[in-house]
Formats: sequence, structure tokens, C-alpha cells
Amino acid sequence: MTYDLWYWAEIPGRGEFVRLTLEAAGIAYRDMAREQGSDAMMKDMASRHPRPFAPPYLVAGDLCIAQTANVLRFLAERHGLGPADEAGRLLVHQVQLTIADLVEEIHGVHHPVDPGLYYHDQKPEALRAAQAFRADRLPKYLGWFETLLADAGGAWLAGDRWSCADLSLFHLVAGLDYAFPLRMGALAADISRVRALHDRVHRLPELADYLASDRCLGFNEDGLFRHYPELDAA
Amino acid sequence: MTYDLWYWAEIPGRGEFVRLTLEAAGIAYRDMAREQGSDAMMKDMASRHPRPFAPPYLVAGDLCIAQTANVLRFLAERHGLGPADEAGRLLVHQVQLTIADLVEEIHGVHHPVDPGLYYHDQKPEALRAAQAFRADRLPKYLGWFETLLADAGGAWLAGDRWSCADLSLFHLVAGLDYAFPLRMGALAADISRVRALHDRVHRLPELADYLASDRCLGFNEDGLFRHYPELDAA
Repeated sequence: MTYDLWYWAEIPGRGEFVRLTLEAAGIAYRDMAREQGSDAMMKDMASRHPRPFAPPYLVAGDLCIAQTANVLRFLAERHGLGPADEAGRLLVHQVQLTIADLVEEIHGVHHPVDPGLYYHDQKPEALRAAQAFRADRLPKYLGWFETLLADAGGAWLAGDRWSCADLSLFHLVAGLDYAFPLRMGALAADISRVRALHDRVHRLPELADYLASDRCLGFNEDGLFRHYPELDAA
Repeated sequence: MTYDLWYWAEIPGRGEFVRLTLEAAGIAYRDMAREQGSDAMMKDMASRHPRPFAPPYLVAGDLCIAQTANVLRFLAERHGLGPADEAGRLLVHQVQLTIADLVEEIHGVHHPVDPGLYYHDQKPEALRAAQAFRADRLPKYLGWFETLLADAGGAWLAGDRWSCADLSLFHLVAGLDYAFPLRMGALAADISRVRALHDRVHRLPELADYLASDRCLGFNEDGLFRHYPELDAA
């Protein structure tokens, strides 16, 4: 079965977490809004019952699955990705949901008061939010991933092969490198395991074609991870 | 097996979503931080491998499961709660994750720039955040739940019995009634199905003992749902 993935055509965004798993697992999919545009996505989304609250969503035959972590869990189950044991599967989903929380906080840094307004309409608030994020939240989250990798004791967060959580952590770190290069540089000594995992995923043979292709969009200032120099500091 | 639930002792918070499912399903559990205090929880949490990022977490024999939606999915699977078909199970989890997103936004209203500071240290920003939340985000989310219930066509979000998503939506509405009574009043005509679901859960015989007990904490201004009159308006 070829899946239909729907997500905003212009940014990596939350869709990229799904895309990386589809690509690394060699699962056939069509990137629908890239082919047909975001207007077609809004139309498609409105026609669904039940309708997703927001993209990304995946259409798999009669199923329409929304919420990034929910889509990834579905793919992991159906395609046998990640650990097979219950503890491992629960941990992978737990990590995925914690990544989702961090992604939401990252979005909140440049949109602290109103997701419907532009960044420049909430810049003073964003400056305050970025300070707290850099000082407390970011080290807390990254430190937690570091602890997990220390506990796992191997190459991956859970089990002896990559899971969607590993791929997602790779993308998260890449996004943070883009958005907060100074802060990520200052934290380098504390997150060596996280960095090694990022590099390991980056070198996966099963991702090489995708990462080198023009299907893999770069980060930009319309997405989740935005580089506004005034929000970054060591 | 008696589960151990760990969550802050002083607030309903995210722990309440787990508690409601445990109570309604008649599943035996110990509310550990209520018995031993929040300091004991911090100690327990630090001793876990893998360590949860944050409460709530559930200890089930050798398993330690964190992230509210992950815990609920585990309980639903293990105890046969909610719909049995794949589409139904995926929808329940999708709703649960969307409730988690909304809960995060609700927290962001009174803590828009720094979760580590007090509300009164970020009040001007909170006033702006509350305005956007009341005008756009809250009606958008509640409208989505309303659409889901219209599509479902029955008493519950999915299937012919309550699921954890129904119980969670009940608690969400109760929290919003507490935090934003004027805005919820103004939206009443648009959310009649959501209101009916809230009332239906509130009358569930399997929750009667719990809701009448002193185990069921009221909302307060240390929790997720806070009533600051200056943040509410019709």
C-alpha cells in the first residue's frame, strides 16, 4: 500500500518526523501537499471524517491518522520498526511524546503569546521566552535525552536498531543547531551522547539518498526551527 | 496487580487524566505522592532507569511508563478500554494527544514566557496570550471536538462505550469552566455536544464515588487550570 502523507509543502516542520521514518524504512508514500499544494491539503482535511485537527496526517487506505506521534506509532507497529518488547515500545513512544513537548516549547519561543500573529508582533515577549528556554528548558530536555542514552548503553535509545525516536531526535538536534547555534555550541560538552546519536543517524545508509535529495527541505523562518540571531546566545 | 501512580500531590494537573481512567475502570492503584509526598516522588523519579522526564508516571511491575497519553494507551490496551477496532483506537489516541496540546496551550496562557517563574512575573504577557487564546485557539479546539462528536453520531467520541478520551474531555471542560467561566458561557451555544459529553461523564455511575470523595481534588491556582479573572472575558 502506498501511503498519502499530508503536510505543509513549504517547511520541514512536524511532517519531517514522519518523513524520516518513511524514508529510512523504505516505505512507499506520496507527499501530497508537495504535489498538489497546501490549498489542496486544506480541502482534503476538511473533507475527512473524522477530520484531523492539524497536519501532519497519514492516509492509509480507509484509515486517516493524525498527530505525529500517533502516526509514528502506527508505522512502527505495522512495519515492525523499533524494539519488539513492550518496555521498549512504551519507551520509544514516551520519547516521541517528550520530543513533541519540546517542539511545542521551541515554537513557543518565537510565538510566546499568539500563534496567529507574526514573530515581529511578539518580539519583546520572544526575547524573554528565549532567555528562559536557553537557560533552563533546553538543557533540561537535552540532559534527559543524554541520560536515556547513557542508560541504554548502546547505539540507540531503545533496542539494537534505530526507532522513530532516534530519527526524531536527530531531526530535533539538527533543528536546534540551526535555530540556536551559539547555545548548542556552549552545551556541546554536556550532550556528547546526543551528538553522537545525531551523527549516527546522519550517516545511516538508508537515509543517504533522501538527505541528499531536494525532497529534504532546509530549515527556514516559516517553520518550527527558526534562526533569529537575537534569540540565541551562548 | 496494583499500579503505582506518581503525580504531584497538591493539584489535579495532568495526573487527573490518568486517575479518572483508573477510577472509572475500577483498576487498583496507589496514589503514591499523595501517600508519601512530592519529595518522595522526586527521589523515586531520579532512581528510575529510564527516568521519566516529568510526572505523571505509572509503575506497573517492571514497567515504568511516563507521558499521560502513553500511560492511558497502555491502560486501554491492557484492560480492554475503549474501541477494539484499529480506527477507533487510533482516533482515541489522536484525541488524547490533541487534548495534551490544548492543555499545554492552557498552561502557556498563564506562563507565556517562562514556566519557571510565577504568573505575576509574566502578567502583561499573560494578558496578551489570554486574549489570543480566548479569541482563536479555544474556539478552534472546542469546535474540533464538537465536529468529532457530530461525526461519531452517538454518545461517545469513538465506539459504544466511554474511552479515556471521553473522560479526559470531561476533565478538560471542567477545567476550562473553572479557568474561563465567562468565555465558556459565551461559547455555550456552539459546543452543545461537548457539554452533553461532559455531563454524561459527570453522571457515570462508575465515577460517582470518586467524584464525591476527597481524593478528587478541586482546581487551584497552582495547577494547570487557574482562575485569574483578568484573563477571562466573554
